[in-house]
Amino acid sequence: MNLRETIESIGPLDREAMKKSETRWNSIAKPLYAFGEFEPMTIRMAGITGDPAIRVDKKALVIMCADHGVLEEGVSQSNAEITAVMTEGFTRMECSASVMADMAGVDLFPVDIGVARDVIPEVINRKIAYGTKNMAKEPAMTREQAVKSIEVGIGMVEMLKEKGYQIICVGEMGVGNTTASSAMASVFLNVPVAGVTGRGSGLKAEGLAHKTKVLEKIVASYTFDENDPLDVLAKVGGFEIGGMAGLYLGAAASRIPVVADGAISCVAALLACKLAPAAKDYIFASHLSKEPAGKLLLDALGLNPCLTCGMHLGEGTGAVALMPVLDLALGVYHRMSTFSDVDIMTYEPYEEDDDKKE
Amino acid sequence: MNLRETIESIGPLDREAMKKSETRWNSIAKPLYAFGEFEPMTIRMAGITGDPAIRVDKKALVIMCADHGVLEEGVSQSNAEITAVMTEGFTRMECSASVMADMAGVDLFPVDIGVARDVIPEVINRKIAYGTKNMAKEPAMTREQAVKSIEVGIGMVEMLKEKGYQIICVGEMGVGNTTASSAMASVFLNVPVAGVTGRGSGLKAEGLAHKTKVLEKIVASYTFDENDPLDVLAKVGGFEIGGMAGLYLGAAASRIPVVADGAISCVAALLACKLAPAAKDYIFASHLSKEPAGKLLLDALGLNPCLTCGMHLGEGTGAVALMPVLDLALGVYHRMSTFSDVDIMTYEPYEEDDDKKE
Repeated sequence: MNLRETIESIGPLDREAMKKSETRWNSIAKPLYAFGEFEPMTIRMAGITGDPAIRVDKKALVIMCADHGVLEEGVSQSNAEITAVMTEGFTRMECSASVMADMAGVDLFPVDIGVARDVIPEVINRKIAYGTKNMAKEPAMTREQAVKSIEVGIGMVEMLKEKGYQIICVGEMGVGNTTASSAMASVFLNVPVAGVTGRGSGLKAEGLAHKTKVLEKIVASYTFDENDPLDVLAKVGGFEIGGMAGLYLGAAASRIPVVADGAISCVAALLACKLAPAAKDYIFASHLSKEPAGKLLLDALGLNPCLTCGMHLGEGTGAVALMPVLDLALGVYHRMSTFSDVDIMTYEPYEEDDDKKE
Repeated sequence: MNLRETIESIGPLDREAMKKSETRWNSIAKPLYAFGEFEPMTIRMAGITGDPAIRVDKKALVIMCADHGVLEEGVSQSNAEITAVMTEGFTRMECSASVMADMAGVDLFPVDIGVARDVIPEVINRKIAYGTKNMAKEPAMTREQAVKSIEVGIGMVEMLKEKGYQIICVGEMGVGNTTASSAMASVFLNVPVAGVTGRGSGLKAEGLAHKTKVLEKIVASYTFDENDPLDVLAKVGGFEIGGMAGLYLGAAASRIPVVADGAISCVAALLACKLAPAAKDYIFASHLSKEPAGKLLLDALGLNPCLTCGMHLGEGTGAVALMPVLDLALGVYHRMSTFSDVDIMTYEPYEEDDDKKE
């Protein structure tokens, strides 16, 4: 589907399935609401799939990888070659995300959506360009490229859905992409750049001051159309940010739960929700990034993170870290003794009668 | 070992091992400190065992189970029979902790340290009495029982150490024990009862008001010796709280990392640290309980929780929930590519030379 068709096909949650899931949680022999966030989280998953027998056994992590022309302005201590090396490393056990995904039973799909050089064929090739333009001098991408980047994400979800994936973790890799995400966060949240700009992969105080100054100049140099989120993506975004927004939108259209990672992925989530507010119901937080925009973005999305361990690694590692804890919560949901005799986990031919019982 | 011998045998962390562990983290191909809390956490584990090749593959959860005479005052909507039923349920897949421990690869050891009736022989029998006395009328236990409860925990760790366990999760089960833990927290933290009293397993507003009133009267009725934490345990504590304090002290003496769960287990941790301040280095937080004392107690212990998902289930479930995430972090620690050639994970016969390299 293209972007417009995708947005139009995002429907509401299945309230019946949610009610049944809530009944199941409350019937389990434990104090009410004792699983905290995991209860509304999984109830929402039932609303997404329409099935209270929630299964997220088949898990995918999609890592959108791209480079940023704004690196020319000295906003990172790393160089673009690191993006390519890491992108290739995701296909082997050479990155944190690979190791964690392997251990957590999550299948990893690295996507070259705009890496600055060609990479090995094991990486999924959806290259739009060899990195964005330098947004300090001209818009990062054209409007057509912005739409295309989102549609790459949508296409990825369609492929994953065919393969039977039940939950999608969102990740990114791109040296310089905290610069793009901070610019977008500043515009979307209407807060000064300094409030949403952090150290990225490890800038020292001087580097952070420079990055903030560069960003202030960039954001001031453009006029943004508030009602046109694609305009913001095109001017100061990145291909991987568009790609991630496409993952959220595609997941919402395909009724698959989709899990955000840190600040950059949350900017993409906000972009997705600005394009299609109904997508919000399909998105889950994982952890609270140490990047200063992290908390502001989660608040804007109305999401609570379950993990607050100060991780700031990117690559989808926070989203993957949530998976085994989610598995434990669902283990209790499925396997635990209940107070009542009713087993809503089995197929129920007499749904209306069951409703009356509630 | 008895309590005094245990306290005396708690030594400092191994700074050399911690330095090596820190070097390992910093050599991994990822942004500095990108694993957040998991870096100092695992570095401390290296300091505990004296070995930077941190292994926590063999995991135990000890659930201390006991009843509370103060139930007579109507401080819980449950009755003591629930304690016995759950204590027995831990030996089967009938409790949240059993299911989660099974999934997370954690071996579960339920201990009857004071359940109000006899339980099945599959539960480890360390019964001190059939529940505590009603602390609204007389001290919950004698001083001798207080010491004995702690020594039960110490003995459990000695047994687990012999079996090769590398990390111990702390859990509890006891209807009425948030009443005891709130009383102890109020005394230890020197805060009014209302600030540390919560809904336990699900009191409504009226029940909470009653519980708070009962607790205020209880705490006001005793004179506590500030310099004598055992006095507080004896007057307003519980056998399972003493037992958990013993787990922390025993783990510290045996140089095994020990993981707290929610508010009740944190009161026990504070008790342990008041008896032996050096024990603090051996204790790890897992999650932030929704009980109001949770945050205050973790602050008093100087610990940051990694999970903030609003769980309040007890049974050690929060501690168990941390295990798979810790495993992921250690997976990266052990399996990831490094920037340098030095592999500190192998045995190093020339330690002094390596020190010079650092």
